[in-house]
Amino acid sequence: MTFLRQPTRAGVRDAAAKLAAILPPTPLFSREINGVEIAFKSEPLQPMGAFKLRGAWHRLTALSDEARRKGVVAFSSGNHAQGIAWAAKRLGIAATIVMPADAPRAKVEGTLALGAEIVAYDRATESRETIAARLAEARGATLVPSFDDPWIIEGQGSAGVEAAAQMEAAGLGAPAHVVVPCGGGGLAAGIALALKDAAITVVEPEGWDDMRRSLEASWILPVGDSPPPTACDALQTKQVSPLTFDVLSRRDARGVAVSEAETATAQRWAAEQLRLVVEPGGAVALAALLAGKVAPEPGMLVILSGGNVDRAAYARVLAGG
Amino acid sequence: MTFLRQPTRAGVRDAAAKLAAILPPTPLFSREINGVEIAFKSEPLQPMGAFKLRGAWHRLTALSDEARRKGVVAFSSGNHAQGIAWAAKRLGIAATIVMPADAPRAKVEGTLALGAEIVAYDRATESRETIAARLAEARGATLVPSFDDPWIIEGQGSAGVEAAAQMEAAGLGAPAHVVVPCGGGGLAAGIALALKDAAITVVEPEGWDDMRRSLEASWILPVGDSPPPTACDALQTKQVSPLTFDVLSRRDARGVAVSEAETATAQRWAAEQLRLVVEPGGAVALAALLAGKVAPEPGMLVILSGGNVDRAAYARVLAGG
Repeated sequence: MTFLRQPTRAGVRDAAAKLAAILPPTPLFSREINGVEIAFKSEPLQPMGAFKLRGAWHRLTALSDEARRKGVVAFSSGNHAQGIAWAAKRLGIAATIVMPADAPRAKVEGTLALGAEIVAYDRATESRETIAARLAEARGATLVPSFDDPWIIEGQGSAGVEAAAQMEAAGLGAPAHVVVPCGGGGLAAGIALALKDAAITVVEPEGWDDMRRSLEASWILPVGDSPPPTACDALQTKQVSPLTFDVLSRRDARGVAVSEAETATAQRWAAEQLRLVVEPGGAVALAALLAGKVAPEPGMLVILSGGNVDRAAYARVLAGG
Repeated sequence: MTFLRQPTRAGVRDAAAKLAAILPPTPLFSREINGVEIAFKSEPLQPMGAFKLRGAWHRLTALSDEARRKGVVAFSSGNHAQGIAWAAKRLGIAATIVMPADAPRAKVEGTLALGAEIVAYDRATESRETIAARLAEARGATLVPSFDDPWIIEGQGSAGVEAAAQMEAAGLGAPAHVVVPCGGGGLAAGIALALKDAAITVVEPEGWDDMRRSLEASWILPVGDSPPPTACDALQTKQVSPLTFDVLSRRDARGVAVSEAETATAQRWAAEQLRLVVEPGGAVALAALLAGKVAPEPGMLVILSGGNVDRAAYARVLAGG
């Protein structure tokens, strides 16, 4: 049993400063939806295509020299893998990633291209947590979870710090309501810490809306035994973390679930209106807005969290609708 | 016969200052190609999805109050139309656009959404120049050409001013070689004026490479009588202008032609590596680089000029390769 420190607002600001030293902020765009100007934070435009390098950078830069020498181990369906690989490469740290054998090809290739070692597992029969923990133990390496970690949460929150400054600069005012995709809740919790006065709505795919149900129940509930298939590979998290849940619960965050069709509509809208490639899991917050499940309001900030699509699947989405 | 003033470097800098006052620079990204860091200027991320609002803004803001009251007329397959409509809407000027009946649906809808009036014509049998000139004469409106105009050329050049500052800030040095899509040559000529020390390569679709042939002949040559079909609707210009040709010729610009397959490969690469939706005509400079027709070199700047795709056609491109 490890006792983890709580993620803090000061930690988020520290992470934002560390990120600002190495990368420009991802662009913020605005578009009118039902006559209201909405801000869109575009994390697909990160070098590795998703917000995940934020937490990875904050975590890996906090490792001791000795820990850096022994390397890091992570498990991920793809974006956290690439975030860790990106940060590890830049810091000269060896990274091993435990990835499902059916992860999108683009995410596997992206991770390999960043120099990480990949260990594949069968999503149906094996536990990635166990495999990763054993690897880390055998090598003395540091296990870097994808959301159940205060540094990771704080790092992801840097997106909120950036967006607030960009909204102010663009004359859109302070963020009043943030709509954010949710898998394990790291991004949502980090942004909630960053933006202490904003309402928070987390969005999940239908059947994977355990954070929504947990927030309503005020208790962590896992996804059901047979969750439906979803194109949102990045959001297939079976249970959220006390760290992310506590932050969101204390902030009275609300959860919304969107259908696969609503997500596809959002991907098409992002391609046509923003000229951005957004992956299914990265488009769910936009989907909630376009589907009318979240009402547009002044000061609304919608997070587009990633753009690492499977090209063939993305082509089918664009051909539809 | 009208005598046009020549576009100037001072005019480009003036245009850049006017643009900077109303819009943030479009992001500049860098990626390694064959071990060389290449800069990509991302004009698909403009509000209307292409660089064309630059020239439109510079031109329309230079109109007298009386000219503004009488409105503007333009002819365009789509991006210039949307650029003019965008600038006109912002300035409260009435805009009429002569567009081919077979223009991509997205470009027609984008233009209408920006409040412009559209007059359709048959690309095969009618002359858009004649229709537009008659409309302008009847209304006393100002005809705004898409490239044969010093303000338009200067305005487009603001992309080069921005990119140079961004490359410097990113540690990529001054632009040494710019690779740029070419229809009528407005963007290429403007950037050549902006970046007086850079080599310039203009890229056109095969069979529409009249600028390439003109530069080699040192004399303006039109496209052939039966140019092949091309997905690059934005680059189907039958003859370049003395204004654009002279600038590029004096700078010893080189021309390169790319195939439809090379362009499609570039669109797929942009989607996967940059998460950007780039239209065929916007991807030809990248295509020349990826096809090895332009060798990567330090200080290289590749312009991605627009992202207003026909969604069905774009889906087919992404499904291929």
